Amino acid sequence: MIAATERELLTPEQLKARLEDTGARFYHHKHPFHLMMHDGKLTRGQLQAWALHRFYYQSRIPIKDAIILSRSDDSEFRRVWRKRIVDHDGAEGGDGGIERWIKLAEATGLDRERVLSNREVLPGVRYAVDAYLHLVADRTLLEAVASSLTEMFSHKLIALRMDRMRQHYPWLEGGLAYFQARLTQAPDDAMFALNYVTEHASTREQQELVIGALRAKCDLLWAQLDAIYFAYVEPGWPPPGAFQFEGR
Amino acid sequence: MIAATERELLTPEQLKARLEDTGARFYHHKHPFHLMMHDGKLTRGQLQAWALHRFYYQSRIPIKDAIILSRSDDSEFRRVWRKRIVDHDGAEGGDGGIERWIKLAEATGLDRERVLSNREVLPGVRYAVDAYLHLVADRTLLEAVASSLTEMFSHKLIALRMDRMRQHYPWLEGGLAYFQARLTQAPDDAMFALNYVTEHASTREQQELVIGALRAKCDLLWAQLDAIYFAYVEPGWPPPGAFQFEGR
Repeated sequence: MIAATERELLTPEQLKARLEDTGARFYHHKHPFHLMMHDGKLTRGQLQAWALHRFYYQSRIPIKDAIILSRSDDSEFRRVWRKRIVDHDGAEGGDGGIERWIKLAEATGLDRERVLSNREVLPGVRYAVDAYLHLVADRTLLEAVASSLTEMFSHKLIALRMDRMRQHYPWLEGGLAYFQARLTQAPDDAMFALNYVTEHASTREQQELVIGALRAKCDLLWAQLDAIYFAYVEPGWPPPGAFQFEGR
Repeated sequence: MIAATERELLTPEQLKARLEDTGARFYHHKHPFHLMMHDGKLTRGQLQAWALHRFYYQSRIPIKDAIILSRSDDSEFRRVWRKRIVDHDGAEGGDGGIERWIKLAEATGLDRERVLSNREVLPGVRYAVDAYLHLVADRTLLEAVASSLTEMFSHKLIALRMDRMRQHYPWLEGGLAYFQARLTQAPDDAMFALNYVTEHASTREQQELVIGALRAKCDLLWAQLDAIYFAYVEPGWPPPGAFQFEGR
Protein backbone atom coordinates (compact mmCIF):
# COMPACT_ATOMS: atom_id res chain seq x y z
CA MET A 1 0.00 0.00 0.00
CA ILE A 2 1.34 3.37 -1.00
CA ALA A 3 0.13 6.23 1.17
CA ALA A 4 -1.97 8.86 -0.61
CA THR A 5 0.71 11.49 0.05
CA GLU A 6 3.17 9.33 -1.90
CA ARG A 7 0.96 9.35 -4.97
CA GLU A 8 0.33 13.09 -5.13
CA LEU A 9 2.12 15.19 -7.69
CA LEU A 10 4.78 17.38 -6.10
CA THR A 11 4.66 21.12 -6.78
CA PRO A 12 7.73 22.51 -8.58
CA GLU A 13 8.93 23.88 -5.22
CA GLN A 14 8.47 20.51 -3.51
CA LEU A 15 10.28 18.70 -6.31
CA LYS A 16 13.17 21.16 -6.10
CA ALA A 17 13.32 20.69 -2.33
CA ARG A 18 13.47 16.89 -2.71
CA LEU A 19 16.27 17.24 -5.25
CA GLU A 20 18.19 19.58 -2.95
CA ASP A 21 17.74 17.17 -0.07
CA THR A 22 19.09 14.34 -2.22
CA GLY A 23 22.13 16.45 -3.08
CA ALA A 24 22.70 17.38 0.56
CA ARG A 25 22.73 13.71 1.55
CA PHE A 26 24.40 11.97 -1.37
CA TYR A 27 26.49 14.45 -3.41
CA HIS A 28 30.26 13.95 -3.12
CA HIS A 29 30.97 17.37 -1.58
CA LYS A 30 31.12 15.63 1.81
CA HIS A 31 33.36 12.79 0.68
CA PRO A 32 36.46 12.50 2.92
CA PHE A 33 38.74 12.69 -0.13
CA HIS A 34 37.33 16.13 -0.91
CA LEU A 35 37.60 17.16 2.75
CA MET A 36 41.29 16.18 2.68
CA MET A 37 41.75 18.05 -0.58
CA HIS A 38 40.21 21.21 0.85
CA ASP A 39 42.26 20.93 4.04
CA GLY A 40 45.49 20.74 2.04
CA LYS A 41 46.15 17.19 3.22
CA LEU A 42 46.63 15.49 -0.15
CA THR A 43 50.10 14.77 -1.46
CA ARG A 44 51.10 15.58 -5.02
CA GLY A 45 50.89 11.87 -5.86
CA GLN A 46 47.34 11.67 -4.52
CA LEU A 47 46.36 14.72 -6.56
CA GLN A 48 47.90 13.02 -9.59
CA ALA A 49 45.81 9.92 -8.94
CA TRP A 50 42.69 12.08 -8.64
CA ALA A 51 43.43 14.07 -11.82
CA LEU A 52 44.26 10.94 -13.83
CA HIS A 53 41.13 9.07 -12.74
CA ARG A 54 38.82 12.01 -13.02
CA PHE A 55 40.10 12.38 -16.59
CA TYR A 56 38.47 9.05 -17.38
CA TYR A 57 35.20 10.61 -16.21
CA GLN A 58 35.82 13.80 -18.24
CA SER A 59 36.65 11.77 -21.34
CA ARG A 60 33.27 10.01 -21.16
CA ILE A 61 31.18 13.18 -20.66
CA PRO A 62 30.84 14.12 -24.34
CA ILE A 63 30.00 10.47 -25.09
CA LYS A 64 27.33 10.61 -22.38
CA ASP A 65 25.92 13.80 -23.87
CA ALA A 66 25.98 12.37 -27.40
CA ILE A 67 23.94 9.39 -26.17
CA ILE A 68 21.40 11.80 -24.68
CA LEU A 69 21.35 13.80 -27.94
CA SER A 70 20.75 10.59 -29.87
CA ARG A 71 17.70 9.80 -27.77
CA SER A 72 15.77 13.03 -28.36
CA ASP A 73 13.68 13.73 -31.44
CA ASP A 74 13.19 17.39 -30.45
CA SER A 75 15.60 19.59 -32.34
CA GLU A 76 15.20 22.46 -29.89
CA PHE A 77 16.23 20.18 -27.02
CA ARG A 78 19.15 18.90 -29.08
CA ARG A 79 20.34 22.43 -29.89
CA VAL A 80 20.50 23.34 -26.21
CA TRP A 81 22.03 20.05 -25.14
CA ARG A 82 24.67 20.24 -27.89
CA LYS A 83 26.28 23.12 -25.99
CA ARG A 84 27.57 20.61 -23.44
CA ILE A 85 29.49 18.70 -26.09
CA VAL A 86 30.96 21.94 -27.44
CA ASP A 87 31.91 22.95 -23.88
CA HIS A 88 33.89 19.75 -23.41
CA ASP A 89 35.34 19.10 -26.85
CA GLY A 90 35.88 22.78 -27.63
CA ALA A 91 34.59 25.04 -30.39
CA GLU A 92 38.00 24.82 -31.98
CA GLY A 93 40.69 22.22 -31.20
CA GLY A 94 42.44 22.67 -27.85
CA ASP A 95 39.94 24.97 -26.13
CA GLY A 96 37.42 22.66 -24.47
CA GLY A 97 36.96 21.15 -21.04
CA ILE A 98 38.80 17.95 -21.97
CA GLU A 99 41.87 19.93 -22.97
CA ARG A 100 41.65 22.06 -19.83
CA TRP A 101 41.48 18.96 -17.66
CA ILE A 102 44.63 17.63 -19.32
CA LYS A 103 46.31 20.92 -18.40
CA LEU A 104 45.28 20.34 -14.79
CA ALA A 105 46.71 16.82 -14.87
CA GLU A 106 49.93 18.17 -16.39
CA ALA A 107 50.10 20.74 -13.59
CA THR A 108 50.19 17.82 -11.11
CA GLY A 109 53.26 16.53 -12.97
CA LEU A 110 51.68 13.85 -15.14
CA ASP A 111 52.58 13.21 -18.74
CA ARG A 112 49.85 14.11 -21.22
CA GLU A 113 49.97 10.85 -23.14
CA ARG A 114 49.76 8.80 -19.93
CA VAL A 115 46.57 10.62 -18.92
CA LEU A 116 44.99 10.44 -22.38
CA SER A 117 45.54 6.70 -22.67
CA ASN A 118 43.29 5.81 -19.68
CA ARG A 119 45.53 2.74 -19.42
CA GLU A 120 46.03 2.83 -15.65
CA VAL A 121 42.49 3.62 -14.55
CA LEU A 122 41.25 1.65 -11.53
CA PRO A 123 38.57 -0.89 -12.50
CA GLY A 124 36.36 0.54 -9.73
CA VAL A 125 36.48 4.03 -11.27
CA ARG A 126 35.90 2.62 -14.74
CA TYR A 127 32.79 0.71 -13.62
CA ALA A 128 31.29 3.74 -11.87
CA VAL A 129 31.83 5.98 -14.90
CA ASP A 130 30.57 3.32 -17.31
CA ALA A 131 27.47 2.98 -15.11
CA TYR A 132 26.76 6.59 -16.04
CA LEU A 133 26.82 5.72 -19.74
CA HIS A 134 24.55 2.75 -19.14
CA LEU A 135 22.17 4.93 -17.13
CA VAL A 136 21.71 7.49 -19.91
CA ALA A 137 21.46 4.77 -22.56
CA ASP A 138 19.08 2.40 -20.77
CA ARG A 139 16.75 4.50 -18.61
CA THR A 140 14.16 6.96 -19.88
CA LEU A 141 15.30 10.23 -21.48
CA LEU A 142 13.74 12.01 -18.51
CA GLU A 143 16.04 10.12 -16.13
CA ALA A 144 19.03 10.65 -18.43
CA VAL A 145 18.46 14.42 -18.23
CA ALA A 146 17.81 14.24 -14.49
CA SER A 147 21.15 12.55 -13.88
CA SER A 148 22.86 15.83 -14.82
CA LEU A 149 21.13 17.65 -11.94
CA THR A 150 24.27 17.27 -9.82
CA GLU A 151 25.19 20.52 -11.55
CA MET A 152 22.78 22.17 -9.10
CA PHE A 153 25.46 21.53 -6.48
CA SER A 154 28.71 21.78 -8.41
CA HIS A 155 29.08 25.56 -8.46
CA LYS A 156 29.52 25.78 -4.70
CA LEU A 157 31.93 22.84 -4.59
CA ILE A 158 34.05 24.18 -7.45
CA ALA A 159 34.26 27.69 -5.97
CA LEU A 160 35.45 26.23 -2.66
CA ARG A 161 37.86 23.89 -4.41
CA MET A 162 39.49 26.70 -6.41
CA ASP A 163 39.88 28.80 -3.29
CA ARG A 164 41.47 25.95 -1.33
CA MET A 165 43.67 24.81 -4.19
CA ARG A 166 45.16 28.30 -4.49
CA GLN A 167 45.75 28.28 -0.75
CA HIS A 168 47.17 24.77 -0.28
CA TYR A 169 48.56 23.76 -3.68
CA PRO A 170 49.67 27.03 -5.29
CA TRP A 171 51.79 25.08 -7.79
CA LEU A 172 48.47 23.93 -9.35
CA GLU A 173 47.50 27.50 -10.30
CA GLY A 174 48.29 26.98 -14.00
CA GLY A 175 45.82 24.10 -14.15
CA LEU A 176 42.69 25.80 -12.78
CA ALA A 177 41.20 27.01 -16.08
CA TYR A 178 38.86 24.01 -16.21
CA PHE A 179 37.16 25.03 -12.98
CA GLN A 180 37.00 28.69 -13.97
CA ALA A 181 35.02 27.77 -17.09
CA ARG A 182 32.69 25.43 -15.20
CA LEU A 183 31.72 28.24 -12.82
CA THR A 184 29.80 29.90 -15.65
CA GLN A 185 28.82 26.79 -17.68
CA ALA A 186 27.32 24.62 -14.94
CA PRO A 187 24.61 26.98 -13.61
CA ASP A 188 23.06 27.45 -17.09
CA ASP A 189 23.11 23.70 -17.64
CA ALA A 190 21.59 23.05 -14.22
CA MET A 191 18.79 25.57 -14.80
CA PHE A 192 17.89 24.01 -18.14
CA ALA A 193 17.85 20.48 -16.72
CA LEU A 194 15.81 21.51 -13.68
CA ASN A 195 13.23 23.25 -15.87
CA TYR A 196 13.16 20.25 -18.17
CA VAL A 197 12.43 17.68 -15.46
CA THR A 198 9.93 20.01 -13.79
CA GLU A 199 8.00 20.30 -17.05
CA HIS A 200 8.32 16.72 -18.25
CA ALA A 201 7.75 14.75 -15.05
CA SER A 202 3.98 14.89 -15.20
CA THR A 203 3.19 12.12 -12.70
CA ARG A 204 4.44 11.46 -9.19
CA GLU A 205 5.98 8.22 -10.43
CA GLN A 206 8.02 10.15 -12.98
CA GLN A 207 9.05 12.65 -10.33
CA GLU A 208 10.34 9.77 -8.22
CA LEU A 209 12.28 8.46 -11.22
CA VAL A 210 13.88 11.91 -11.54
CA ILE A 211 14.91 11.91 -7.88
CA GLY A 212 16.18 8.33 -8.24
CA ALA A 213 18.31 9.28 -11.24
CA LEU A 214 19.92 12.13 -9.30
CA ARG A 215 20.60 9.73 -6.43
CA ALA A 216 22.17 7.22 -8.87
CA LYS A 217 24.42 9.97 -10.26
CA CYS A 218 25.48 11.01 -6.75
CA ASP A 219 26.28 7.35 -6.00
CA LEU A 220 28.55 7.04 -8.99
CA LEU A 221 30.44 10.22 -8.17
CA TRP A 222 30.88 9.05 -4.57
CA ALA A 223 31.97 5.57 -5.69
CA GLN A 224 34.75 7.07 -7.84
CA LEU A 225 36.20 8.85 -4.82
CA ASP A 226 35.83 5.71 -2.68
CA ALA A 227 37.89 3.76 -5.20
CA ILE A 228 40.53 6.52 -5.37
CA TYR A 229 40.68 6.88 -1.58
CA PHE A 230 40.95 3.12 -1.13
CA ALA A 231 43.80 2.75 -3.61
CA TYR A 232 45.81 5.92 -2.90
CA VAL A 233 45.06 7.09 0.64
CA GLU A 234 44.05 4.22 2.88
CA PRO A 235 44.59 1.22 3.03
CA GLY A 236 46.52 2.07 -0.13
CA TRP A 237 46.54 -0.86 -2.50
CA PRO A 238 45.76 -0.19 -6.13
CA PRO A 239 45.01 -3.53 -7.81
CA PRO A 240 47.69 -5.11 -10.02
CA GLY A 241 48.08 -3.04 -13.19
CA ALA A 242 46.55 0.23 -11.95
CA PHE A 243 48.20 3.68 -11.71
CA GLN A 244 50.86 3.94 -9.02
CA PHE A 245 52.54 7.23 -8.16
CA GLU A 246 56.19 7.59 -7.23
CA GLY A 247 57.46 7.83 -3.68
CA ARG A 248 54.94 5.61 -1.90
CA MET B 1 55.44 -2.63 -34.51
CA ILE B 2 54.40 -5.97 -33.03
CA ALA B 3 57.25 -8.46 -32.66
CA ALA B 4 56.92 -11.64 -34.72
CA THR B 5 56.65 -13.71 -31.53
CA GLU B 6 53.57 -11.68 -30.57
CA ARG B 7 51.82 -12.62 -33.79
CA GLU B 8 52.41 -16.36 -33.63
CA LEU B 9 49.61 -18.69 -32.65
CA LEU B 10 50.14 -20.11 -29.17
CA THR B 11 50.07 -23.88 -28.76
CA PRO B 12 47.29 -25.18 -26.46
CA GLU B 13 49.92 -25.65 -23.74
CA GLN B 14 51.22 -22.10 -24.19
CA LEU B 15 47.72 -20.67 -24.08
CA LYS B 16 46.95 -22.62 -20.90
CA ALA B 17 50.19 -21.36 -19.34
CA ARG B 18 49.28 -17.74 -20.18
CA LEU B 19 45.83 -18.22 -18.63
CA GLU B 20 47.35 -19.76 -15.51
CA ASP B 21 49.80 -16.88 -15.24
CA THR B 22 46.91 -14.40 -15.52
CA GLY B 23 45.09 -16.19 -12.71
CA ALA B 24 48.20 -16.25 -10.54
CA ARG B 25 48.59 -12.48 -10.89
CA PHE B 26 45.01 -11.18 -10.96
CA TYR B 27 42.62 -13.73 -9.42
CA HIS B 28 41.16 -12.70 -6.06
CA HIS B 29 42.67 -15.59 -4.07
CA LYS B 30 45.39 -13.19 -2.92
CA HIS B 31 43.02 -10.35 -1.99
CA PRO B 32 43.62 -9.18 1.62
CA PHE B 33 39.93 -9.70 2.44
CA HIS B 34 40.32 -13.39 1.60
CA LEU B 35 43.58 -13.59 3.54
CA MET B 36 41.78 -12.16 6.59
CA MET B 37 38.92 -14.60 6.08
CA HIS B 38 41.28 -17.56 5.94
CA ASP B 39 43.18 -16.36 9.01
CA GLY B 40 39.95 -16.15 11.03
CA LYS B 41 40.26 -12.37 11.35
CA LEU B 42 36.83 -11.36 10.05
CA THR B 43 34.03 -10.48 12.45
CA ARG B 44 30.55 -11.88 12.06
CA GLY B 45 29.40 -8.48 10.75
CA GLN B 46 32.12 -8.48 8.10
CA LEU B 47 31.14 -11.99 7.03
CA GLN B 48 27.54 -10.77 6.81
CA ALA B 49 28.65 -7.92 4.56
CA TRP B 50 30.55 -10.36 2.37
CA ALA B 51 27.66 -12.85 2.13
CA LEU B 52 25.10 -10.12 1.41
CA HIS B 53 27.19 -8.50 -1.32
CA ARG B 54 28.33 -11.72 -2.86
CA PHE B 55 24.65 -12.63 -3.10
CA TYR B 56 24.23 -9.82 -5.59
CA TYR B 57 26.92 -11.52 -7.70
CA GLN B 58 25.25 -14.94 -7.29
CA SER B 59 21.87 -13.50 -8.23
CA ARG B 60 23.29 -12.22 -11.54
CA ILE B 61 25.06 -15.47 -12.53
CA PRO B 62 22.03 -17.20 -14.13
CA ILE B 63 21.28 -13.93 -15.96
CA LYS B 64 24.86 -13.86 -17.20
CA ASP B 65 24.58 -17.45 -18.38
CA ALA B 66 21.24 -16.81 -20.07
CA ILE B 67 22.83 -13.94 -22.01
CA ILE B 68 25.59 -16.31 -23.15
CA LEU B 69 22.97 -18.93 -24.09
CA SER B 70 21.10 -16.31 -26.09
CA ARG B 71 24.21 -15.52 -28.13
CA SER B 72 24.95 -19.03 -29.39
CA ASP B 73 23.23 -20.66 -32.34
CA ASP B 74 24.78 -24.05 -31.59
CA SER B 75 22.31 -26.24 -29.74
CA GLU B 76 25.05 -28.58 -28.49
CA PHE B 77 26.84 -25.63 -26.90
CA ARG B 78 23.58 -24.40 -25.41
CA ARG B 79 22.78 -27.82 -23.93
CA VAL B 80 26.11 -27.94 -22.12
CA TRP B 81 25.97 -24.30 -21.01
CA ARG B 82 22.38 -24.70 -19.75
CA LYS B 83 23.74 -26.89 -16.93
CA ARG B 84 25.11 -23.75 -15.28
CA ILE B 85 21.67 -22.20 -15.06
CA VAL B 86 20.26 -25.41 -13.61
CA ASP B 87 23.13 -25.53 -11.11
CA HIS B 88 22.26 -22.05 -9.85
CA ASP B 89 18.49 -21.94 -10.09
CA GLY B 90 18.03 -25.60 -9.15
CA ALA B 91 16.42 -28.54 -10.96
CA GLU B 92 13.48 -28.18 -8.60
CA GLY B 93 12.67 -25.14 -6.46
CA GLY B 94 14.94 -24.64 -3.46
CA ASP B 95 17.86 -26.84 -4.47
CA GLY B 96 20.16 -24.62 -6.52
CA GLY B 97 23.22 -22.48 -5.86
CA ILE B 98 21.18 -19.34 -5.27
CA GLU B 99 19.19 -21.04 -2.52
CA ARG B 100 22.35 -22.51 -1.01
CA TRP B 101 23.95 -19.06 -0.93
CA ILE B 102 20.93 -17.69 0.92
CA LYS B 103 21.44 -20.48 3.47
CA LEU B 104 25.03 -19.29 3.90
CA ALA B 105 23.87 -15.70 4.41
CA GLU B 106 21.29 -16.90 6.93
CA ALA B 107 24.03 -18.78 8.77
CA THR B 108 25.82 -15.43 9.23
CA GLY B 109 22.66 -14.15 10.92
CA LEU B 110 21.06 -12.22 8.07
CA ASP B 111 17.39 -12.23 7.29
CA ARG B 112 16.49 -13.99 4.04
CA GLU B 113 14.34 -11.19 2.67
CA ARG B 114 16.99 -8.58 3.36
CA VAL B 115 19.53 -10.55 1.32
CA LEU B 116 17.12 -11.33 -1.53
CA SER B 117 16.14 -7.67 -1.95
CA ASN B 118 19.66 -6.50 -2.92
CA ARG B 119 18.52 -3.16 -1.48
CA GLU B 120 21.67 -2.41 0.54
CA VAL B 121 24.29 -3.43 -2.00
CA LEU B 122 27.26 -1.06 -2.28
CA PRO B 123 27.25 0.83 -5.60
CA GLY B 124 30.87 -0.28 -6.14
CA VAL B 125 29.90 -3.94 -5.92
CA ARG B 126 26.89 -3.38 -8.15
CA TYR B 127 28.98 -1.70 -10.86
CA ALA B 128 31.59 -4.49 -10.84
CA VAL B 129 28.96 -7.21 -11.12
CA ASP B 130 27.02 -5.32 -13.79
CA ALA B 131 30.29 -4.94 -15.72
CA TYR B 132 30.24 -8.74 -15.97
CA LEU B 133 26.81 -8.65 -17.61
CA HIS B 134 27.96 -5.95 -20.01
CA LEU B 135 31.07 -7.97 -20.84
CA VAL B 136 29.13 -11.09 -21.83
CA ALA B 137 26.53 -9.04 -23.72
CA ASP B 138 28.87 -6.70 -25.61
CA ARG B 139 32.08 -8.60 -26.35
CA THR B 140 32.41 -11.61 -28.67
CA LEU B 141 30.91 -14.94 -27.60
CA LEU B 142 34.47 -16.26 -27.41
CA GLU B 143 35.33 -13.63 -24.77
CA ALA B 144 32.04 -14.21 -22.95
CA VAL B 145 32.95 -17.89 -22.58
CA ALA B 146 36.55 -17.03 -21.68
CA SER B 147 35.41 -14.81 -18.82
CA SER B 148 34.24 -17.94 -16.99
CA LEU B 149 37.79 -19.34 -16.97
CA THR B 150 38.26 -18.11 -13.40
CA GLU B 151 36.74 -21.49 -12.59
CA MET B 152 40.18 -22.91 -13.39
CA PHE B 153 41.26 -21.37 -10.07
CA SER B 154 38.16 -21.58 -7.91
CA HIS B 155 38.43 -25.21 -6.81
CA LYS B 156 41.62 -24.60 -4.84
CA LEU B 157 40.28 -21.39 -3.28
CA ILE B 158 36.98 -22.99 -2.27
CA ALA B 159 38.66 -26.06 -0.75
CA LEU B 160 40.90 -23.79 1.35
CA ARG B 161 37.97 -21.55 2.30
CA MET B 162 35.84 -24.49 3.52
CA ASP B 163 38.71 -25.82 5.57
CA ARG B 164 39.39 -22.44 7.19
CA MET B 165 35.73 -21.64 7.74
CA ARG B 166 35.28 -24.87 9.68
CA GLN B 167 38.34 -24.00 11.73
CA HIS B 168 37.67 -20.31 12.44
CA TYR B 169 33.91 -19.85 12.06
CA PRO B 170 32.43 -23.23 13.08
CA TRP B 171 29.03 -21.57 13.54
CA LEU B 172 28.93 -21.22 9.71
CA GLU B 173 28.99 -25.01 9.21
CA GLY B 174 25.28 -25.17 8.31
CA GLY B 175 25.87 -22.73 5.44
CA LEU B 176 28.65 -24.51 3.57
CA ALA B 177 26.53 -26.57 1.16
CA TYR B 178 27.06 -24.00 -1.61
CA PHE B 179 30.80 -24.55 -1.59
CA GLN B 180 30.47 -28.33 -1.35
CA ALA B 181 28.44 -28.34 -4.57
CA ARG B 182 30.84 -25.99 -6.38
CA LEU B 183 33.75 -28.36 -5.67
CA THR B 184 32.29 -30.81 -8.18
CA GLN B 185 30.51 -28.35 -10.53
CA ALA B 186 33.32 -25.89 -11.22
CA PRO B 187 36.00 -28.26 -12.56
CA ASP B 188 33.64 -29.65 -15.25
CA ASP B 189 32.64 -26.12 -16.24
CA ALA B 190 36.27 -24.98 -16.34
CA MET B 191 37.31 -27.93 -18.52
CA PHE B 192 34.53 -27.23 -21.02
CA ALA B 193 35.36 -23.52 -21.22
CA LEU B 194 39.09 -24.17 -21.58
CA ASN B 195 38.50 -26.67 -24.39
CA TYR B 196 36.09 -24.23 -26.03
CA VAL B 197 38.49 -21.30 -26.11
CA THR B 198 41.38 -23.53 -27.17
CA GLU B 199 39.36 -24.77 -30.15
CA HIS B 200 37.68 -21.50 -31.10
CA ALA B 201 40.53 -19.00 -30.73
CA SER B 202 42.07 -19.69 -34.11
CA THR B 203 44.29 -16.60 -34.39
CA ARG B 204 46.76 -15.05 -31.99
CA GLU B 205 44.58 -11.97 -31.82
CA GLN B 206 41.65 -14.09 -30.63
CA GLN B 207 43.88 -15.82 -28.10
CA GLU B 208 44.83 -12.42 -26.71
CA LEU B 209 41.14 -11.50 -26.48
CA VAL B 210 40.59 -14.69 -24.46
CA ILE B 211 43.39 -13.79 -22.06
CA GLY B 212 42.06 -10.23 -21.82
CA ALA B 213 38.58 -11.47 -20.95
CA LEU B 214 39.97 -13.62 -18.13
CA ARG B 215 41.91 -10.59 -16.88
CA ALA B 216 38.74 -8.46 -17.00
CA LYS B 217 36.86 -11.10 -14.99
CA CYS B 218 39.65 -11.23 -12.39
CA ASP B 219 39.49 -7.43 -12.15
CA LEU B 220 35.79 -7.44 -11.41
CA LEU B 221 36.10 -10.10 -8.73
CA TRP B 222 38.97 -8.15 -7.13
CA ALA B 223 37.04 -4.86 -7.33
CA GLN B 224 34.11 -6.39 -5.42
CA LEU B 225 36.38 -7.31 -2.53
CA ASP B 226 38.04 -3.86 -2.65
CA ALA B 227 34.63 -2.22 -2.25
CA ILE B 228 33.68 -4.58 0.61
CA TYR B 229 37.04 -4.11 2.36
CA PHE B 230 36.84 -0.35 2.00
CA ALA B 231 33.33 -0.14 3.45
CA TYR B 232 33.49 -2.77 6.19
CA VAL B 233 37.13 -3.27 7.19
CA GLU B 234 39.19 -0.14 6.59
CA PRO B 235 38.68 2.86 6.54
CA GLY B 236 35.15 1.59 7.12
CA TRP B 237 32.63 3.95 5.59
CA PRO B 238 29.85 2.44 3.56
CA PRO B 239 28.23 5.23 1.52
CA PRO B 240 24.86 6.64 2.66
CA GLY B 241 22.16 4.02 2.14
CA ALA B 242 24.37 0.92 1.95
CA PHE B 243 24.32 -2.14 4.24
CA GLN B 244 25.56 -1.48 7.77
CA PHE B 245 26.03 -4.27 10.30
CA GLU B 246 25.29 -3.94 14.00
CA GLY B 247 27.92 -3.31 16.63
CA ARG B 248 30.33 -1.12 14.68
